[in-house]
Amino acid sequence: MQSSNQRFAQRIASVRPSAIREILKVTQRPEVISFAGGLPAPEHFPTATLGALASEVLASIGSTALQYSLTEGVPELRAWVAERMQGVWGIPTTPDDVLITGGSQQGLDLVAKAYLDPGDLVALEAPSYLGAIQAFDTYQARYLTIETDGDGLIPEALERSLSQLSVQPKLLYLIPNFQNPSGTTLSAERREAIVRICEQFEIPIFEDDPYGELRFAGTPQRPLASFSSRSPIFYAGTGSKVMAPGLRVAWLLLRDPAIRAQVVPLKQASDLHTGTLAQYLFHRFVADESRFSEHLHTISSLYGTRQHAMVSGLRATFGSDIEFTIPEGGMFLWATLRGIDNTAALFPYAQERNVVFVPGEFFYANAKQHNGMRLSFSNTDETKITEGLTRLQAAVNAYHQAS
Amino acid sequence: MQSSNQRFAQRIASVRPSAIREILKVTQRPEVISFAGGLPAPEHFPTATLGALASEVLASIGSTALQYSLTEGVPELRAWVAERMQGVWGIPTTPDDVLITGGSQQGLDLVAKAYLDPGDLVALEAPSYLGAIQAFDTYQARYLTIETDGDGLIPEALERSLSQLSVQPKLLYLIPNFQNPSGTTLSAERREAIVRICEQFEIPIFEDDPYGELRFAGTPQRPLASFSSRSPIFYAGTGSKVMAPGLRVAWLLLRDPAIRAQVVPLKQASDLHTGTLAQYLFHRFVADESRFSEHLHTISSLYGTRQHAMVSGLRATFGSDIEFTIPEGGMFLWATLRGIDNTAALFPYAQERNVVFVPGEFFYANAKQHNGMRLSFSNTDETKITEGLTRLQAAVNAYHQAS
Repeated sequence: MQSSNQRFAQRIASVRPSAIREILKVTQRPEVISFAGGLPAPEHFPTATLGALASEVLASIGSTALQYSLTEGVPELRAWVAERMQGVWGIPTTPDDVLITGGSQQGLDLVAKAYLDPGDLVALEAPSYLGAIQAFDTYQARYLTIETDGDGLIPEALERSLSQLSVQPKLLYLIPNFQNPSGTTLSAERREAIVRICEQFEIPIFEDDPYGELRFAGTPQRPLASFSSRSPIFYAGTGSKVMAPGLRVAWLLLRDPAIRAQVVPLKQASDLHTGTLAQYLFHRFVADESRFSEHLHTISSLYGTRQHAMVSGLRATFGSDIEFTIPEGGMFLWATLRGIDNTAALFPYAQERNVVFVPGEFFYANAKQHNGMRLSFSNTDETKITEGLTRLQAAVNAYHQAS
Repeated sequence: MQSSNQRFAQRIASVRPSAIREILKVTQRPEVISFAGGLPAPEHFPTATLGALASEVLASIGSTALQYSLTEGVPELRAWVAERMQGVWGIPTTPDDVLITGGSQQGLDLVAKAYLDPGDLVALEAPSYLGAIQAFDTYQARYLTIETDGDGLIPEALERSLSQLSVQPKLLYLIPNFQNPSGTTLSAERREAIVRICEQFEIPIFEDDPYGELRFAGTPQRPLASFSSRSPIFYAGTGSKVMAPGLRVAWLLLRDPAIRAQVVPLKQASDLHTGTLAQYLFHRFVADESRFSEHLHTISSLYGTRQHAMVSGLRATFGSDIEFTIPEGGMFLWATLRGIDNTAALFPYAQERNVVFVPGEFFYANAKQHNGMRLSFSNTDETKITEGLTRLQAAVNAYHQAS
């Protein structure tokens, strides 16, 4: 018989140590130029507006904004989410379909808690979002990684993988827009193809879309959840990237009443409900349609400008020694450098020169590839991007000299 | 092989349907006098103060109050919690020991997630907090219920139960102060006795203390966590009852660095971190020591007045036909009525007369007892308490006439 402590250690052993947290600590130092963190630009948080709105919400809604509230979320916010999902994104949604969550991360945790037994398979892109892998790790998932290219997950690769399996994955997890970490977007024709494949193999899809509203180039694509399917499609959206992450307000669409009746009690058992004041504050901000669309336009344009600065900077600095994705929105691009097989080995040289990035290996659920790096452009202005890339070049030179 | 849906249904079947949520819906109707919900008195939420503090926080701290933040919590708040736990409650605590959680409920969820495998035993009081039972249910716990009396959990009963088991519980869960639902307080001498028994049997304790600051009579008792023990004692405190639940700010003390290193990643995988603005707001409110202690005095006194109104009202209304606990703090008391074996059967008669309570059966993890009822006095003023008890008497009379 095992002691509590042994079993406890085993339970946790499967959760990846968050080495990335150590990297992010470095970014706190003011002299460091960080392409590492996936942080929205704080200079465009509506800080003053929210101060005024907080007083307004508390004066008009009063103590209800501070009291216990419904697990599903504040009715006004659920109605706004439903209207936006339906009206802007074409996902058939009623307010009843909306569960307000503590960040998209909680949506991942709840669905994983509901669906995954130890050893169950989750299909996902390689590379994929580290936080999702951590959420699935908690429930001791195993992974089926699916090949991707510049247009996102490859449907034929998915179909081929699934048809070779005797036990199917419990979920397909993907980020169709401006993927984290690659920056690629799933092409229009692949979206319906993937929905049909998952319908055929009866695999629920978790469509994680934190960046969809942050498009600065190209044409918006239909969410996978806008296609009808007999197999469930969970869709997660968030206020973190369109307003501010510190409120922890996001939403998970649970459009099947039977699934909803099962997931909502899991949310209740996890934390009763998401912050009441935070929900009212977020709602008050976005309910002013012209203010919200102007705000979205401002931050998307800013990220577009910064992406452009980084893309030109990478070309100017590294010429033909670099390959990278050119995202049409979001916060990240993905780069590989000629002659650098292991970006984790490059990292100390960069850190020494006060520039940081996330080594690509962190984003692989299974067999790690070591030659990629995620570069975030959202949180760094153009001057610092140029300076950061100069430092990165110096780091690359030093690395080559040392090896 | 089972389909996803079958396994999904099985997974969720163990989570108790939240019949209590249905009861709480009734309490939304303005004509209903509710002794049901465990709601703090909203008329004493610092609503206007928080509106002003929100502007102040956002003006002084700026975008940091809205950005992603550390999983462990905002440093200022962790420091305040440590100081209060150490200074007021005598629990040896450093800021590093503090994990800020989304309500105490999340602390329960995280510890359950870390410790419980399906079928594992949790020892707890009978009756106990429904939300804790729901959190443990999620991880398919089984229960060992321990006998209690007017002084709380009986150490001899605990020791006897444990010594008869070949496989020990993974946790002892208890609420030592003004217990939910019974209103009883664990006596001083029993506290150390329970710590020693759990040390001997190597059972971690989860000490849930949401109400400890709400004492209006009697003498404060040392927390179990203030005794040193070789077996871990988790202590959970919350801002929900001392300020407002809608911020979802609470804390879990994890004083063993090894356990902390294991639980913090589970919090990160669950929701990254608790709301940044909410943490700063709560901290700003409590950091003004005289304002906070005055606020605590105001609400404790109010609850004392209401407890007194309910206690006198119960005596005046039901005379020797009722037995009930007389809590020294908190929000609830527990009553049994002569001739009423099943308070769930009484409930419809009460609801018809626009007064509601929570039937006691919901609070039993194992064998249900049906003759108790939880009466909350915190959220109802004295006039309504009197009127509510008159209605309850009418319901009791109608119930007896019908049976």
